[in-house]
Amino acid sequence: MNISMIKYIIGYILKLEAGFLIFPLLVSFYFKENASMYKSYFYTITILLFIGFTFSRKLPKNQKMFAKEGLVTVSLSWIFLSFFGALPFVFSNYIPSLIDAFFETVSGFTTTGASILTNVEALPNSLLFWRSFTHLVGGMGVLVLALAILPKSNNRSLHLMKAEVPGPTFGKLVAKMSYNSRILYIIYILMTILLAIILMLEGMPFFDSMLHAFGTAGTGGFGIKNTSIAYYNNSLIHYTIGIGMLLFSLNFNLYYILILGNIKQFFKSEEMKWFFSIVFLSILLICLNIHSIYDNVFNMIRDVFFTVASIVSTTGYSTADFDRWPLFSKTILLFLMFMGGCAGSTAGGLKVSRVVILIKNTLKEFKKLGSSNKVVSLKIEGKPITNDLMESISSYLIVYISVFIIILVGISFSLPNLNTSFSAVAATFNNIGPGFESLGPTQNYSALTDLNKIILSFSMLLGRLEIFPVLILFSPEIYKNWNKKYKKRK
Amino acid sequence: MNISMIKYIIGYILKLEAGFLIFPLLVSFYFKENASMYKSYFYTITILLFIGFTFSRKLPKNQKMFAKEGLVTVSLSWIFLSFFGALPFVFSNYIPSLIDAFFETVSGFTTTGASILTNVEALPNSLLFWRSFTHLVGGMGVLVLALAILPKSNNRSLHLMKAEVPGPTFGKLVAKMSYNSRILYIIYILMTILLAIILMLEGMPFFDSMLHAFGTAGTGGFGIKNTSIAYYNNSLIHYTIGIGMLLFSLNFNLYYILILGNIKQFFKSEEMKWFFSIVFLSILLICLNIHSIYDNVFNMIRDVFFTVASIVSTTGYSTADFDRWPLFSKTILLFLMFMGGCAGSTAGGLKVSRVVILIKNTLKEFKKLGSSNKVVSLKIEGKPITNDLMESISSYLIVYISVFIIILVGISFSLPNLNTSFSAVAATFNNIGPGFESLGPTQNYSALTDLNKIILSFSMLLGRLEIFPVLILFSPEIYKNWNKKYKKRK
Repeated sequence: MNISMIKYIIGYILKLEAGFLIFPLLVSFYFKENASMYKSYFYTITILLFIGFTFSRKLPKNQKMFAKEGLVTVSLSWIFLSFFGALPFVFSNYIPSLIDAFFETVSGFTTTGASILTNVEALPNSLLFWRSFTHLVGGMGVLVLALAILPKSNNRSLHLMKAEVPGPTFGKLVAKMSYNSRILYIIYILMTILLAIILMLEGMPFFDSMLHAFGTAGTGGFGIKNTSIAYYNNSLIHYTIGIGMLLFSLNFNLYYILILGNIKQFFKSEEMKWFFSIVFLSILLICLNIHSIYDNVFNMIRDVFFTVASIVSTTGYSTADFDRWPLFSKTILLFLMFMGGCAGSTAGGLKVSRVVILIKNTLKEFKKLGSSNKVVSLKIEGKPITNDLMESISSYLIVYISVFIIILVGISFSLPNLNTSFSAVAATFNNIGPGFESLGPTQNYSALTDLNKIILSFSMLLGRLEIFPVLILFSPEIYKNWNKKYKKRK
Repeated sequence: MNISMIKYIIGYILKLEAGFLIFPLLVSFYFKENASMYKSYFYTITILLFIGFTFSRKLPKNQKMFAKEGLVTVSLSWIFLSFFGALPFVFSNYIPSLIDAFFETVSGFTTTGASILTNVEALPNSLLFWRSFTHLVGGMGVLVLALAILPKSNNRSLHLMKAEVPGPTFGKLVAKMSYNSRILYIIYILMTILLAIILMLEGMPFFDSMLHAFGTAGTGGFGIKNTSIAYYNNSLIHYTIGIGMLLFSLNFNLYYILILGNIKQFFKSEEMKWFFSIVFLSILLICLNIHSIYDNVFNMIRDVFFTVASIVSTTGYSTADFDRWPLFSKTILLFLMFMGGCAGSTAGGLKVSRVVILIKNTLKEFKKLGSSNKVVSLKIEGKPITNDLMESISSYLIVYISVFIIILVGISFSLPNLNTSFSAVAATFNNIGPGFESLGPTQNYSALTDLNKIILSFSMLLGRLEIFPVLILFSPEIYKNWNKKYKKRK
């Protein structure tokens, strides 16, 4: 285990976070907030810079990183980021409990959007900004950002990107990783700015537009109003954010293809076609199911479109209390919660490509039954699904279910019933935010015990980083190797 | 598709069912029941014999059966059996609705034990007998019984047994299939008789002992008292049935090995060791969790032992209302519901061997993370897990989840909330019977709509026959071939 290199990168990431915190500090100045707010940011930045510089004093000689180091670096970075990112909430006393603040910050970086706040509107603007800004950073990934900024990069970049970008990867954009991540980030930022401008043109205030663009881009879901997006009584805004959530749930490689002018290849994307087909079908079925609840068919379509987009993109914004919809609609939403968006997007869940391959496998089994001895071969994106890919996806599913059960048991000690616990795990592990019933879109996570908040924080990290990077921290092998190498050096 | 052979076997099975119905008829005579009861059985027997003889007039020339025919034969047999087995309930007017009676009979044959009756004690003894008798027949399987009785058998037997005996098979007892099934049935019947005798010696009336032995042997769970086993206020009886349920959840091949005197090999069984370890651990954890509810520690251990045995064996008898236990205990029970008993037993669920292989696979993934490039090979029962076995198990899991979701959506139209629908699917698909909350151990299925009763009947069949035999009936390929062959002949 190349510990010096891991430390070096984490140090760099913490310096980067110090940089991020300058933005809410400026917001704080702009809105002439209380002096205690400035101090909160200032202290946090000082701590971050101190630790950052201590960790990354000089570049280690041995810069080799393998898959293992990549996984450990990514998960440790995210844990450190969330811990220090929580400090402004604690220092300013708006979220006095460190555990609550950690939960809120993890929820931000992992773009979950689950909140322990009962009254969001009580927060000062700079903290609202910081909450939403964590969505923006976490959406595309902080290590991907570091790679985009860092001058040189070699094989280590690949491992870091693999560990942070979600979904089973089907290829990379360009050969050079730093270039790769730079392209991704530029597309991401431009789309976010565009969205903010459109929202402003539709009448949303500047500050609100910016923060909702962050939340939409990262498919996070932290709102700045207690009634979430329902506060803006403007269908245009609802549709804009709805479409935005769907667009940020697509694989970002597709946008690069589009920029290169390869429109044909863009529309060929099988994952995208499945994604939009499933979204369209879900909207249709839910509309048929709930039409008796609504007087106005246009309002219904708007609310259903928004809710489906919000759930499938694992954002979690709400304009309607879907928990009050009939069970059939809720069952469809539950399916969408577990599916999530496309690979290589900012969305959570199992990812469309994985679910499509699983569906294809089920259909293959079904076809094999009817016709004896017929060999059915599966394809995805025009290429045959190799045994390795199929194996890695079923392994992922098996590990996903196992971890889900362990978290479910872990949080069961102080919860009243199965639907609360199931809902909590489903909503955090898939990075959605709101669940059903006592954790529905009009509720929050404040009533949970501290232990459960910590477990669910890890649930969010496990979901965002697709399990393995976080799981490796619990592997005793890692610590064995850790000590071994340490002793050798001494 | 060899339709003549399928018809022939189904005809034979229906004649066999006519034979089964002589038992409740005799019970009816013995208890001097109403003349309308005799008539119900008599009519049903007449219908069964008529159709049975029409279907199996003479042995077809072409007796070849492939896997496909095996699957279709087994699932159609079970559907026919359940349909005609429901008639005595309808004719006698004790369950006037055919759909209700079908649900109850499917529940019996599949050894689920889910009931639509609100007052079991209102049934005459002969119907109580018939209900429990279906558990006995369905537990080991009616085609296995037919094979045990039928004189000659060739390759077709293998396909029928494969389709009816649950679990991923790891080998067969002896080369000859008919001998094989005969041994299984003899062990099964002897164990049932032994259990009935022990219950009688412990003070349970003769009739009750017999019926509970049937229900325990088949791991079914139909009781004859409204309060299930709690009615018998006798710890010895509770422990006897509890141990019985666990013993009938073991692979019956193990008993054959034991009879052959190969005690060493018996205790070597890895699946059995895992099964008992999981059972022991579950009992321990639940006791630690609920000790504050009970005044008397012995009562607690008795109730927890009985409940865990009842759930893991997918029987569904109850002595305590486990729905009122804290969530941690219920989460463990939920896990046991999905796991179920061992392969080759009368229990339902995913089966211990499958779950163990899935757990081993998860641990493998975990180990692979910590140590780079280390090849970890998995073993079960001392033999390496081949890629084929692993693939078939992950495929089964994927199909299991897909079918689970389809049923969940299917029944969602007229149910109030997710926990009811989830509970209903989990309890029927795993052949348990009672679920949680509105379908808990003190509740029943009477309030469901007819459509949901039909869907859940298929859920029970899908669970008992391990999905594929039932799924093949929905494959269009089958009907294409069906017509093709038919036309050729004409």
